[in-house]
Amino acid sequence: MPTYRLVVEYDGSRFHGLQYQPTLRTVAGALEAALTRIFDEPVKITAAGRTDAGVHATGQVVSFTAAREFAPGRLTPAINGNTPADLVVHDAAVVADEFSARFDALERVYDYLILNRRTPTAVWSHRAWHVPRPIDDALFARAAAPLLGEHDFAAFCGEPPERGTTVRELRALDLTRRGELVRVTVRGNAFLHHMVRVLVGTLVGSATGYREPDHAERALHARDRTVAGVTAPAHGLYLAGVRYAGFDSYRPVELAP
Amino acid sequence: MPTYRLVVEYDGSRFHGLQYQPTLRTVAGALEAALTRIFDEPVKITAAGRTDAGVHATGQVVSFTAAREFAPGRLTPAINGNTPADLVVHDAAVVADEFSARFDALERVYDYLILNRRTPTAVWSHRAWHVPRPIDDALFARAAAPLLGEHDFAAFCGEPPERGTTVRELRALDLTRRGELVRVTVRGNAFLHHMVRVLVGTLVGSATGYREPDHAERALHARDRTVAGVTAPAHGLYLAGVRYAGFDSYRPVELAP
Repeated sequence: MPTYRLVVEYDGSRFHGLQYQPTLRTVAGALEAALTRIFDEPVKITAAGRTDAGVHATGQVVSFTAAREFAPGRLTPAINGNTPADLVVHDAAVVADEFSARFDALERVYDYLILNRRTPTAVWSHRAWHVPRPIDDALFARAAAPLLGEHDFAAFCGEPPERGTTVRELRALDLTRRGELVRVTVRGNAFLHHMVRVLVGTLVGSATGYREPDHAERALHARDRTVAGVTAPAHGLYLAGVRYAGFDSYRPVELAP
Repeated sequence: MPTYRLVVEYDGSRFHGLQYQPTLRTVAGALEAALTRIFDEPVKITAAGRTDAGVHATGQVVSFTAAREFAPGRLTPAINGNTPADLVVHDAAVVADEFSARFDALERVYDYLILNRRTPTAVWSHRAWHVPRPIDDALFARAAAPLLGEHDFAAFCGEPPERGTTVRELRALDLTRRGELVRVTVRGNAFLHHMVRVLVGTLVGSATGYREPDHAERALHARDRTVAGVTAPAHGLYLAGVRYAGFDSYRPVELAP
């Protein structure tokens, strides 16, 4: 029975997160309903990242097994003909039988979008976090630097994992700016619950001068969620890509050339 | 009685266009309701561009007169506290009594966003036109060149104006690209009904090889709407700016640095 791998984009605004819930509209629910129709058998997916309600994705990866075989190039349009408009598949491939989108992931990349200007936004209101106080890009970079590497990120964790460690390896935390638009790209081997949003919220607090520059570093060492800053809102966050041995789904978030 | 000038941004998705309609949700209706509350008298606005249903704006300009005077810097937050989330004011100023946002405009700028890739988009579905066939940027520029300057644009006009000419001066029609994202910036003294959308639809037809490269030029000379190409959809179009003597509201459309 073939194992399939999909690259999935979704607008998280109207989904109650990724994970299947019997009475709510979720990403897994919508995708599994489409796959169940196409493959004519109940399909269950495994996703690389469990995004929360309101969080978007441009490069989410999911895997599943199903009996029916599709010719290359036929599966993507078949799925997209069965999904709602706020969920699109970019790529579908048959992969090695043992492949798991979740357990074989070597790195996840999140993009976090901020609109850094005085007045709020109408056009991008569900797409970026509106931060009215000016962000000092250099201060952001300075505050972020001590977080890179392998650390216990318990202070940046919304709900502790049911089992296992809160140690993760943070590989990049880069801010790029184009006028009033700011993108923070966060790379790591894996992430704790709300970790990207607490990282961004804490660093923006320092970079706007609202908190001291070493706030994030002190929270890291304290290993205490109450020491870190606010959780940045879900609607600025995008799961942009997942890297595997020999495959990378990264689709950076950018609108406008 | 002071005359005010506002720069307005809106997400056109849930508005039935700009112009006031008694029973429908429109941009003018939402803005006039907010202004009427703040100024405590019935306020009627004049807008630089009459955008259609689904069309967005980042730099729309409106003018109105009202008796109450506001200290500089107080009016913008007052209005934004009274508008719905999909309509935001960026700038408010008291201007010369005779100022009209419509009749004093020297130039309008529209940005048109295209997502040029095989698979559709979930995240940007109401923000950009999805064109699956590859656009040849050089072919686009070549097809656009003969349209620049002062011409009778009757072929690119949805509904002819009630009175007056169909001659307009087109000053720029520039394509810029960033990967799969394409922005067409269109500048002119003024525009006919649907003019930007028919221009973009016709040029994309040539640039994707679906129609001959001189299709737009032949339509221009024929002065016949049935000769030109399709009307590109409203949801890719943004009124990005209006230029006056001594003031320019241009806010280019771009999300992501």
